[in-house]
Amino acid sequence: MEKIIPKTVLERLPTYMHYLKSLAGTDVETISSATIARALDLGEVQVRKDLALVCGAGKPKVGYEYEQLVSDVEDALGCKTETKVIIVGTGRLGRAFLSYEHFDEYGLYITAGFDADADKVWECGGKHIYAMSELKNYCKENGIKIGIITVPKTSAQEVADQMVDAGIKAIWNFAPIKLNVPESVKVKNENMAGSLAILSVGI
Amino acid sequence: MEKIIPKTVLERLPTYMHYLKSLAGTDVETISSATIARALDLGEVQVRKDLALVCGAGKPKVGYEYEQLVSDVEDALGCKTETKVIIVGTGRLGRAFLSYEHFDEYGLYITAGFDADADKVWECGGKHIYAMSELKNYCKENGIKIGIITVPKTSAQEVADQMVDAGIKAIWNFAPIKLNVPESVKVKNENMAGSLAILSVGI
Repeated sequence: MEKIIPKTVLERLPTYMHYLKSLAGTDVETISSATIARALDLGEVQVRKDLALVCGAGKPKVGYEYEQLVSDVEDALGCKTETKVIIVGTGRLGRAFLSYEHFDEYGLYITAGFDADADKVWECGGKHIYAMSELKNYCKENGIKIGIITVPKTSAQEVADQMVDAGIKAIWNFAPIKLNVPESVKVKNENMAGSLAILSVGI
Repeated sequence: MEKIIPKTVLERLPTYMHYLKSLAGTDVETISSATIARALDLGEVQVRKDLALVCGAGKPKVGYEYEQLVSDVEDALGCKTETKVIIVGTGRLGRAFLSYEHFDEYGLYITAGFDADADKVWECGGKHIYAMSELKNYCKENGIKIGIITVPKTSAQEVADQMVDAGIKAIWNFAPIKLNVPESVKVKNENMAGSLAILSVGI
């Protein structure tokens, strides 16, 4: 059953999954909303509401079946579907992503990189780096719907335009610029410096 | 005046700042909450409430003085105070951070890196890489209160313990593990794979 999960709940699911997976191999069979709430510093009511959207209600006094809950959270996050992702920009940040090991836990695979200057590197983390002129063909042939932008801000909009033209439907943007894309394309802007600034307030 | 800004509002401030700075050099003298709301896809009431916490109310029919607003948002984010930050873990992600250019817009400076195997690299992005045994001294001598963890999850807790011992008060953690630290230490966990998974849902 396909359920629509609100974005605020969706954003907490990796935290649930991460915690639940940390219990693997501990003989846990059932887990209560109270235990989860305590471990994650969340309210118990919130945990129950969140998980109701993902797997229905737990059993009174028992809680959730552990294996089923993990499976349902994985389903909600699309972990069991293999999703291919490409990245444009193979500077230090782009190369870090190409070698990052934890995407596959979520069924995500960065299969290729693209760079305006594809002569600079041709392979990184076992992935081929192509010239930008290959982007559209590659995305069409491989059914790519998700792209990561790690180019400087001066070229980010141009890259976004090319991604949209190549059929990409979701962009994870690390360039510090607001992208203009059609409404049907999802954009998540990641402002690394801003995130660190928020953490530093009040220290 | 030192104001306490709720976390949810604080998290939107980099977005405001980013937009406001994009207007620099356009002769803008005043800006209305309606204009800001439209540009950022936020509700106008929310914009007014957010900015009331940062700079007070705008003038009716005129809005906010642009320069003053930028200055107030910068103040709220601590951009005008030089804050030194260290990073532990000089793999690809750590090295990407050491070379990342946009932290200084927020008054943040990664001044040094640390690695268990400091022989591996000794300099990155113009910053010195020290052995972990130097961490405590370096942090004490340089008044470091913020640390970034980019080590594998197997060593992240040990690194966090050493950071706490070195007087660090805020940790930005990229290792996929929940850190145990004293309550007085702020931790922001960054789950890169989880973020990409959220973006990929429903595409």
